Amino acid sequence: MNYLKKVVIVLLCLFVGFENYAQQHPSIMLTKANIDAVRKGTNEYPLLKHSYLEVKKQADAALSQPIQVPVPADGGGGVTHEQHKKNYNTILNCGIAFQISKEQKYANYVKDMLLSYASQYQKWPLHPKAKENHQGGRIFWQALNDCVWQVYTIQGYDMVYDAISAKDRETIENKLFMPILKFLTEDCYTTFNKIHNHGTWNVAAVGMTGYVLSKPHYVEMALRGSKKDGKSGYLAQIDQLFSPDGYYMEGPYYQRYALLPFVLFAKAINNYQPNLKIFEYRDQLLVKAINSSMQLTYTDGTFFPINDAIKDKTYETIELVYGLNLAYADIKAEPFLLDIAQRQKRVIVSDAGLAVAKAIAEGKSQPFNYVSQWIRDGGKGDEGGLGIIRSGSNEDQQCLLMKAASQGMGHGHFDRLNMLYYDNNGEVFYDYGASRFINIESKRGGHYLPENNSWAKQTVAHNTIVVDQQSHFQAKVSEAEKYHPNLIYFGKDGDTQVVSAEENNAYHGVNMLRTSALVKLPEANKDILIDLFYINSDKEHQYDLPFWYKGHLVGASFTPKVFTKELKPLGTDYGYQHIWLNAENKLDKQTGFITVLNNKRFYTTHFTSETPLKVKMLSIGANDPEMSLMEGKAFMLSQPKAQNQTFVTITEVHGNIDPINETVEAAFSKITDLKLIKSDKTGAEISFKYSGKSYSYRLSYSDKTRFVQFLSTK
Amino acid sequence: MNYLKKVVIVLLCLFVGFENYAQQHPSIMLTKANIDAVRKGTNEYPLLKHSYLEVKKQADAALSQPIQVPVPADGGGGVTHEQHKKNYNTILNCGIAFQISKEQKYANYVKDMLLSYASQYQKWPLHPKAKENHQGGRIFWQALNDCVWQVYTIQGYDMVYDAISAKDRETIENKLFMPILKFLTEDCYTTFNKIHNHGTWNVAAVGMTGYVLSKPHYVEMALRGSKKDGKSGYLAQIDQLFSPDGYYMEGPYYQRYALLPFVLFAKAINNYQPNLKIFEYRDQLLVKAINSSMQLTYTDGTFFPINDAIKDKTYETIELVYGLNLAYADIKAEPFLLDIAQRQKRVIVSDAGLAVAKAIAEGKSQPFNYVSQWIRDGGKGDEGGLGIIRSGSNEDQQCLLMKAASQGMGHGHFDRLNMLYYDNNGEVFYDYGASRFINIESKRGGHYLPENNSWAKQTVAHNTIVVDQQSHFQAKVSEAEKYHPNLIYFGKDGDTQVVSAEENNAYHGVNMLRTSALVKLPEANKDILIDLFYINSDKEHQYDLPFWYKGHLVGASFTPKVFTKELKPLGTDYGYQHIWLNAENKLDKQTGFITVLNNKRFYTTHFTSETPLKVKMLSIGANDPEMSLMEGKAFMLSQPKAQNQTFVTITEVHGNIDPINETVEAAFSKITDLKLIKSDKTGAEISFKYSGKSYSYRLSYSDKTRFVQFLSTK
Repeated sequence: MNYLKKVVIVLLCLFVGFENYAQQHPSIMLTKANIDAVRKGTNEYPLLKHSYLEVKKQADAALSQPIQVPVPADGGGGVTHEQHKKNYNTILNCGIAFQISKEQKYANYVKDMLLSYASQYQKWPLHPKAKENHQGGRIFWQALNDCVWQVYTIQGYDMVYDAISAKDRETIENKLFMPILKFLTEDCYTTFNKIHNHGTWNVAAVGMTGYVLSKPHYVEMALRGSKKDGKSGYLAQIDQLFSPDGYYMEGPYYQRYALLPFVLFAKAINNYQPNLKIFEYRDQLLVKAINSSMQLTYTDGTFFPINDAIKDKTYETIELVYGLNLAYADIKAEPFLLDIAQRQKRVIVSDAGLAVAKAIAEGKSQPFNYVSQWIRDGGKGDEGGLGIIRSGSNEDQQCLLMKAASQGMGHGHFDRLNMLYYDNNGEVFYDYGASRFINIESKRGGHYLPENNSWAKQTVAHNTIVVDQQSHFQAKVSEAEKYHPNLIYFGKDGDTQVVSAEENNAYHGVNMLRTSALVKLPEANKDILIDLFYINSDKEHQYDLPFWYKGHLVGASFTPKVFTKELKPLGTDYGYQHIWLNAENKLDKQTGFITVLNNKRFYTTHFTSETPLKVKMLSIGANDPEMSLMEGKAFMLSQPKAQNQTFVTITEVHGNIDPINETVEAAFSKITDLKLIKSDKTGAEISFKYSGKSYSYRLSYSDKTRFVQFLSTK
Repeated sequence: MNYLKKVVIVLLCLFVGFENYAQQHPSIMLTKANIDAVRKGTNEYPLLKHSYLEVKKQADAALSQPIQVPVPADGGGGVTHEQHKKNYNTILNCGIAFQISKEQKYANYVKDMLLSYASQYQKWPLHPKAKENHQGGRIFWQALNDCVWQVYTIQGYDMVYDAISAKDRETIENKLFMPILKFLTEDCYTTFNKIHNHGTWNVAAVGMTGYVLSKPHYVEMALRGSKKDGKSGYLAQIDQLFSPDGYYMEGPYYQRYALLPFVLFAKAINNYQPNLKIFEYRDQLLVKAINSSMQLTYTDGTFFPINDAIKDKTYETIELVYGLNLAYADIKAEPFLLDIAQRQKRVIVSDAGLAVAKAIAEGKSQPFNYVSQWIRDGGKGDEGGLGIIRSGSNEDQQCLLMKAASQGMGHGHFDRLNMLYYDNNGEVFYDYGASRFINIESKRGGHYLPENNSWAKQTVAHNTIVVDQQSHFQAKVSEAEKYHPNLIYFGKDGDTQVVSAEENNAYHGVNMLRTSALVKLPEANKDILIDLFYINSDKEHQYDLPFWYKGHLVGASFTPKVFTKELKPLGTDYGYQHIWLNAENKLDKQTGFITVLNNKRFYTTHFTSETPLKVKMLSIGANDPEMSLMEGKAFMLSQPKAQNQTFVTITEVHGNIDPINETVEAAFSKITDLKLIKSDKTGAEISFKYSGKSYSYRLSYSDKTRFVQFLSTK
């Protein structure tokens, strides 16, 4: 069935299906027909039992406190902000506790809290902390949080609906929910019709409320935009915000945030209008988005922190608990999903959570299927993407990420062809993520810090080439949005997995081509990482390639010339002003190495180039008047003046230290004699020895059948 | 029974017991009579089974390789060094594998390896990497490692004794062990008779070998010194190296290292000469030493890293596996020891390990009994000590350590009245430990680095007072060895646990008195830390009090004046040259606070003094030409000129962030209005409010019955 046909069918269903809403309550995550089974499951299946007891504990804790519905006053992280956040969680928790326990006290608490909101809501003006150019809410400083509030609250209301009087329902609906619907669709008209995650939360809030209150007009607007013409609204968002592979252009951190309203609303649609077959929409786009969210994590559970991202975020996040539960229960029961469900340590107390907890209890879980893959970016899948290469078991996996995706709007970083490298359940070459102390009011109200623009987004904060100490596109979003990198090659050849991509617009007249590979040697336990960055330019430039690393320097082929008495910033702009220059060496040899001890393992990075390089040792922290920057260290390979330039590195993980038993193994790299033999527009060749055995690694950029050749030589 | 009487009895036993050595093999950790039970236990009890399989795996791995006995050449961490270390482990592992499996191949491998050593040993001169003023070995760069080699090897030999021919035994004993005994007692005469951990390893090696080879002459020397007069040797070491509470003057890191030869030799003595009642010696000193080693850890298993210490070291270390197994099996079967045995995840495959694994399998384990205690230092227990205060369960414990111990010889740091603070299973105010990359040859051969003297030992690297930017005793060990701090008070009064100690010799004419307490408020979940540092001097000085903290600064009562364009060292000597001055504020108010976010919790330190302070923000790393120093940050309270001075701080742990769920709780401290009301030689009084409720905290230094008073006031 082709795409256009499907859209037509969905549109037809929209109209024929409308009068047939299920009018039972509850009907979203928990459904009336399944309540008995879920209730029974909370006694039978450990994960569901544990999850329910946690919900009940929180509901009981809430009941032990008087209801607090303060007049909105504070920004993110402040007292009223946190209280209203707490309230929507309480409403949902009490709703669930009521359905499972049948105890009226929980329903009453929800009712009383909602009546308190209903008695005040219409008096609240736009939030006093609302910011210019940012849609303010009435409960929170931004409308986004009001939408989240409503998405949670309407579910709780749905669960206690039958337990409260018609009169109270009328008060709550007329004085709270209808005014909210009006606010979200009219006052927030622009956001409601935006193709953006704020828009998604808004349409989900409106659509789910429309279903529960039986207001088809609002559901229709939620699905197809204010004008009901399909140019905006939920379906248009599914069409435009995700690539065909389910990648969300802002990156994994925002992908998982955007995911929750997508899947919750989808579940509601599926329950109320199953004929819409929403989970099938756009070739099962939603399940692809859920799966790619999980594939965009490392084995420690953290999301790849590209673009603006809070670094501690893992797949344990509630959005992915919802996503995974629905993917397993409503779409396809893949046993490897259960592995992550176990690590999430909770399920949603719901029909879907029951299915997951039951399957786990029945021993169906299998290890999560981390795969190497190229994830396409762009609505049509033709705007670059992310290359992910993995090697080894989930217990000790090497993982390489190349970022060759589009800019990702305002949260995007200027880091074309950035490379991240993981091993041993942690970061080796890492991304700083965002500069933000989320929810911590003392740090600029918990918002993004000025250093997010001046540092975190800048090219030099990433493991990619900086030309003439300026960021890609001179850090202009509007320019960067126009272009995307292109995939050259992604694939596996024998024991070599390789990703290659180019970026030709980040600097005028400069073509950049990076090829990174994990290569298995017959003699080695772990793969080596071979990275080749080729730059072709119409004139001479300075080229800097930083490697932001974790761990501590323990060896080098040269003696670093350290600035011992004074530190100065590395530059004045584009993030260079935030870097202290700790050491600088002009090497006299073409090859060299640096060894880092990181989480008890050694990582030696050998490097070479056409001519000897400068190596700079860097640390983060200059020009940081509010002491907001996090510690970080890099070594930077630098070529002060060259036209064409190739940076070759081979990073070998070797040996270990055991501080408990005070032993050390294989503290020295086995790689020697790294040489760059050839590098031009058509391809490249390097050679090196491993434990004395010679190897050759050749790239042919235009030959897709023999793109990479890796051979042992005499 | 008094101490002298016991000494007399032991001495008598030494002479009457000698002719009655058990001449069975094996007879140390594994004994012939128990072999069947242990063998059976390796099938029955999970921890013993797992431990044995690990030993067997290593033995099998060794057997798959040819025997390598290289001519000694490399220093610590180098190839021959690591090979000889591996060999002694192999000898022991194969010995155990032989005893349990009865497979001759293991015995043969030990035999062949020992014959290889026997064929070479006498040709080896003093090790080429031996250092001046440091007793060199023949197998290793220092004799210490030769002793360790022998302690392990003789056990392995004891296990295969019956399985190898009398002729081979003769070769091994005459060409290897007897020359080693000669080397260790004659060439290393000074070390052998030293009251020092190197001496302990030496006498243990000699004594255990003497038992196994049935050479009473060597056993006697090991027990009572070369002259057999009791002035040196094992018993003298027990008498002099430990305090009556079982504290080893060099500190916990060396205590656990010293412990292994003590307990192994004790076990051998107990088996061969049970009438010596060695475990009873000096009022059960050895079990006190084992127990205090465990009490000198935090709940994450790490040893308090005072003095020279490698920071990752935990009670999982093999020395404490031996210690704990013997303490449980041979001395007293305390069920709380089993908790740590479970965390150690292994037992020694031995009679003692059997007892531990069996008890665990029978469910006898109880949580380890961490206690608050004053651990005395000094042979007579009158040379200061360590004050340890704990609060809360082992899962989430607050722990405060005050170091008021003697210098601890060459590994001691100049950190009188240093304070460490732990919470949430990690460090809050921490000690740098040693500056050393142990076993990493590229970092000065794995030895202590120059920065260990220039930085790690210096006072400013610790959380205690520095006067006039000079270290205690001007960092002279010989001076520092002459004096020790004195305990003023240690005890609990209601919900207040307090330790108070003084140091009057670190600076001429300056008396320092520090009183630190964990105080439980009825309104708070966690204790607050009240720290009061009183200095009384005959003239004016500069006083600096650094707090080396973990985490990230997120708030302060003042706006830090940050050095954004350039960093300079804080000083020129005594460790100040290694500190970058990041920010400096002269406050205009007497009180202030700093809030740090550390492992998802907030820690606010309120401070006050007689007059407004300077606050400096510091980081480690200046004058570090080899980039050897680890990252670290401090805030320093500073008084540029004062005669008498009191630094008062209250550190409150509050709230948390949850980055998975993006919530924050209690980001602001509840403490306000901290005031210093009185402070002089007789005592002090402060007041503050917690959530608006007023409290008063009073100290009376000379009143041991009402030393501390903590009251809520109107």
